[in-house]
Amino acid sequence: MAKPIDFYFDFSSPYGYFATTCIDAIASKYGREVTWRPILLGAVFKVTGGAPGPMVPLRGDYVQRDFVRGSAYYGIPYKTPTVFPVSTQTAARAFYWLNDTDPAAAKKLASALYKAYFVDDINISDPAQTVAVAAKAGHDAAKGEAAIDDPAVKEKLKAATDDAIARKVFGSPFMVVDGEPFWGMDRMDQFEKWLKTGGW
Amino acid sequence: MAKPIDFYFDFSSPYGYFATTCIDAIASKYGREVTWRPILLGAVFKVTGGAPGPMVPLRGDYVQRDFVRGSAYYGIPYKTPTVFPVSTQTAARAFYWLNDTDPAAAKKLASALYKAYFVDDINISDPAQTVAVAAKAGHDAAKGEAAIDDPAVKEKLKAATDDAIARKVFGSPFMVVDGEPFWGMDRMDQFEKWLKTGGW
Repeated sequence: MAKPIDFYFDFSSPYGYFATTCIDAIASKYGREVTWRPILLGAVFKVTGGAPGPMVPLRGDYVQRDFVRGSAYYGIPYKTPTVFPVSTQTAARAFYWLNDTDPAAAKKLASALYKAYFVDDINISDPAQTVAVAAKAGHDAAKGEAAIDDPAVKEKLKAATDDAIARKVFGSPFMVVDGEPFWGMDRMDQFEKWLKTGGW
Repeated sequence: MAKPIDFYFDFSSPYGYFATTCIDAIASKYGREVTWRPILLGAVFKVTGGAPGPMVPLRGDYVQRDFVRGSAYYGIPYKTPTVFPVSTQTAARAFYWLNDTDPAAAKKLASALYKAYFVDDINISDPAQTVAVAAKAGHDAAKGEAAIDDPAVKEKLKAATDDAIARKVFGSPFMVVDGEPFWGMDRMDQFEKWLKTGGW
């Protein structure tokens, strides 16, 4: 059995959102599972000296334009959020709350959180909003609220982010296939070819 | 007659090199000409706070791997240069030396300089090497040598770089089609679709 693909993303990354809409389907064509790992890009940027694209001089307008243009090109619903970027601890902790016991439910919640933020303009950095999205997905709101403040859940997110940095993950989305790293929604074609051919 | 496409690149950019191998052919499918404009990314990075990918923490190894992997994916010859990145004033000035009187010859020289650097491992930051490439392409070596130090030629490169920054060009390759900006070899598919459809 082939090893699962590691898939890293940040909940404030539009390209990460785009990738969540297609990565499991691509992987399954080649008999592969995908392990989703939301991380905090803010911690990564402290190491790389990077910044969210929209905040970089000269580049900000382009990046916002590219999100919108790319969404239409890929056929993925997208609306520029009123507040962007946002901190993503809350959303990522909600994911890790579910992930150990039910990874499929955690993926569904991640997709619902991305949709809330990038389609319905809901600010998922607000714990109440993240909990509301989880409740709508059928999870217990009180448990979700508690989980977001649970030191054990916080530690899972910290460990995932530290592990990503140790593996030289520097952006979102970021896929690692049998040790081979692919960064960006615009590497999805090469990522798929790698799965299909085993590399070149 | 449709306006020419503006195409910006830096001679030390592998993705810029990849773009030069295909951009004129893509544009001509849609009846468009391409104006090539080598610039100095170093000056751009002073504004954006950016740095060449291979020098960014966490990202360096990936970028070098992506150059090699991408070249094979696209079917473009590429060999990691011994010295990388290099300063590109000399190569860019050689381009602007020819460009006003013979843009086609300037493009041919640019392609020869890219090939020298990214295939034959010739350090084109060395004026003697750039002049040798120009001479091999049929140009007068003494005139080339003089042009590289000509204040008028230097000024053309400075003006092109300043103009690029004023138009918010922040990377290489960078294409502008009727005011619509596209950054990166990995936007060539969207760039072509834009040419084909007139936008979306």
